Amino acid sequence: MNIETTVAEMAKAAGRAARALARCSSEEKNSALNRIAEKLIENKAEIQAQNAKDVDAAKNQGLSAAMIDRLTITDKVLSTMADGLREVAALEDPVGSMDGTWVRPNGLAVSRMRIPLGVIGIIYESRPNVTIDAAGLCIKSGNAVILRGGSESLHSNQILAETVAEGLAESGLPETAVSLIPVREREAVNALLNQDAHVDLIIPRGGEGLIRFVAENSKIPVLKHYKGVCHVYVDASAETGMAMEICMNAKVQRPGVCNAMETLLVHQDAAQTFLPEMARQFGRAGVELRGCKKTRQILPDIIPATEADWPEEYLDLILAVKTVASMDEALAHIAAYSSQHTEAIVTSHYQRAHRFLQEADSSVVLVNASTRFNDGGQLGLGAEMGISTSKLHAFGPMGLRELTTTKFVVLGTGQIRT
Amino acid sequence: MNIETTVAEMAKAAGRAARALARCSSEEKNSALNRIAEKLIENKAEIQAQNAKDVDAAKNQGLSAAMIDRLTITDKVLSTMADGLREVAALEDPVGSMDGTWVRPNGLAVSRMRIPLGVIGIIYESRPNVTIDAAGLCIKSGNAVILRGGSESLHSNQILAETVAEGLAESGLPETAVSLIPVREREAVNALLNQDAHVDLIIPRGGEGLIRFVAENSKIPVLKHYKGVCHVYVDASAETGMAMEICMNAKVQRPGVCNAMETLLVHQDAAQTFLPEMARQFGRAGVELRGCKKTRQILPDIIPATEADWPEEYLDLILAVKTVASMDEALAHIAAYSSQHTEAIVTSHYQRAHRFLQEADSSVVLVNASTRFNDGGQLGLGAEMGISTSKLHAFGPMGLRELTTTKFVVLGTGQIRT
Repeated sequence: MNIETTVAEMAKAAGRAARALARCSSEEKNSALNRIAEKLIENKAEIQAQNAKDVDAAKNQGLSAAMIDRLTITDKVLSTMADGLREVAALEDPVGSMDGTWVRPNGLAVSRMRIPLGVIGIIYESRPNVTIDAAGLCIKSGNAVILRGGSESLHSNQILAETVAEGLAESGLPETAVSLIPVREREAVNALLNQDAHVDLIIPRGGEGLIRFVAENSKIPVLKHYKGVCHVYVDASAETGMAMEICMNAKVQRPGVCNAMETLLVHQDAAQTFLPEMARQFGRAGVELRGCKKTRQILPDIIPATEADWPEEYLDLILAVKTVASMDEALAHIAAYSSQHTEAIVTSHYQRAHRFLQEADSSVVLVNASTRFNDGGQLGLGAEMGISTSKLHAFGPMGLRELTTTKFVVLGTGQIRT
Repeated sequence: MNIETTVAEMAKAAGRAARALARCSSEEKNSALNRIAEKLIENKAEIQAQNAKDVDAAKNQGLSAAMIDRLTITDKVLSTMADGLREVAALEDPVGSMDGTWVRPNGLAVSRMRIPLGVIGIIYESRPNVTIDAAGLCIKSGNAVILRGGSESLHSNQILAETVAEGLAESGLPETAVSLIPVREREAVNALLNQDAHVDLIIPRGGEGLIRFVAENSKIPVLKHYKGVCHVYVDASAETGMAMEICMNAKVQRPGVCNAMETLLVHQDAAQTFLPEMARQFGRAGVELRGCKKTRQILPDIIPATEADWPEEYLDLILAVKTVASMDEALAHIAAYSSQHTEAIVTSHYQRAHRFLQEADSSVVLVNASTRFNDGGQLGLGAEMGISTSKLHAFGPMGLRELTTTKFVVLGTGQIRT
């Protein structure tokens, strides 16, 4: 069978599984998730043996230590995967819930019922734990999933997907609800992106190149997250100590992630008191600052920022700093360079907080809190499937609810339209 | 300027207008809608003069009387457009509303705030009233819109779009919030579908060919509605009189629309009593029946249905009829042939009603009511922008809410992530 046919058959089988899974109760889905968690630990030896093949190949190919670290399934990684499944089992099931019913003048009772999307295709790179995380979220939300992992972790992903399928079967759920594309060839991705008759949604997780490729070649709707160019705006009225703590946390706590601050905007009335001490703290933390002209009048020793710095997602201990004459200028800068991911204001001024919440056009907008809170767990959604920076369907962290949709259910007593 | 550049400039201007419109209060938007309604009546002579150019050209090209009828802006059509705008002005504004706030253990207060999508591109055929309906819904939901109407109504659409722009300007709203692509060339559609940097959503309204073209060529997310192959399932326990009224209404009241019944499924235990009288009523209404083998054992005079009938959207006084041995068979038929538009059951049996609501996987599922209720107005959403039959973002009638999305707003008091 060629790849196109293999993937088409998987998509059809996933469609059948999705219809069965949509009818399962929360109890059935939770017990499958807990069974899979157990099996991950039971199958440890075999999982790690398969994983060793991927790790050895990666070493032979001379991949970086960081890549090999991300690829390796240690005991700790495995138990974290199992715990993740148990946490998803404990989350509230959105499927079947209705957010209110209204009654029409003719007596029809109308509600929106939350239902699974159907079949989700997930295309990801490198880390094999995504195989388990994605499977868990899809099963809980009643969706079948077709996984396409990175080629360097194919052996690991295969044994993990088999473990999931066994756990599903032992729990009486359709084992084809979770399947993994079993080949390395790139054309398998295109084959998946063509399955618009059977697949309802594609979620790419990985670098910008992968995401752009998927978005441009998919016939299926795509939920995507390009990058996080997150801003903190320190208003003239900000409490200096709070502003410093928030900025330090947003930049330094974990600089390699999408919700880290990449550009700091400072009102010129705050700059004189705020910037010198903030720069000292950043300096001690090893952060390289790149400043606009006004910023460099206060911090003459830092590197000049160029136009290329403002749209840049450094994912590193580098920070662009701009001193602005007004909140208008800060909001205009955000509108021009933001990736619509996360923006925060530090202020003590009610109207400015209110205005920032209204006008900053990003998936999460915060007042007096770190950008690092743009995360499904931190916002109380539970585990997440990534963060959407496009507005359709989901904008921000994608939890279980974002993996569902609603249909209208209408209860009548014989009504006809006149 | 070539078409690509013209459309790109329109998209950029629309993006700027969208940011301004997103900040307008409901009062400002409503007063603009009411002003535009007045202007439609004030500009009647000029609108009808421009419309006459399109109508004359259509007559010269030998278009059908039905097409010319749809194209003509009579006094009645114009006042219906104006009334439609006033009705949209009276609807509740979804922008800015929040559906509850939850507080995290660290004190962060998290909400989802409803916001406009940004810029919407609408590609439609023929009827010029869509220009006004779409403009009204987009303005009220805070979105800018780029309109691409049918080439045969270009003069009409241009004068209508100019009237809207004047009304916006007179009300202090950005006049580029509503713009119309001013050329007939097909490449303007492709140019619009390439504006993913500025346009957030494309809605095609028209025949299946147009919709498929848009879905396959768009770099921008598309909300689409292919067709309505709607089923009514008459259960063994159905009240016969109610079933007949609902089926008659679903098929006959307006056969040319997407929420009309196209296939009738009858449980074999009801068929003997139900089908002969139902067939007589359909016969009197001029409905041609096409039956499966079992149906023709009861109604031997009707045309045999072929495999081609089951996925067919007749949009005419034709009905496919299938007698089924069980509810399982009815649901399997719906799963195989449904366009995920509308399904109804007529039953007196609680569990079967419940099961049908759960398992019929369409945008609107009804118990004991006509399929004709799949309509934004009928379901209480107000005016609609069409009916989505794909599940992402919106599934079913698209009212004002479906033209918005949500962002997370987070109120803190200095929280950082640890």
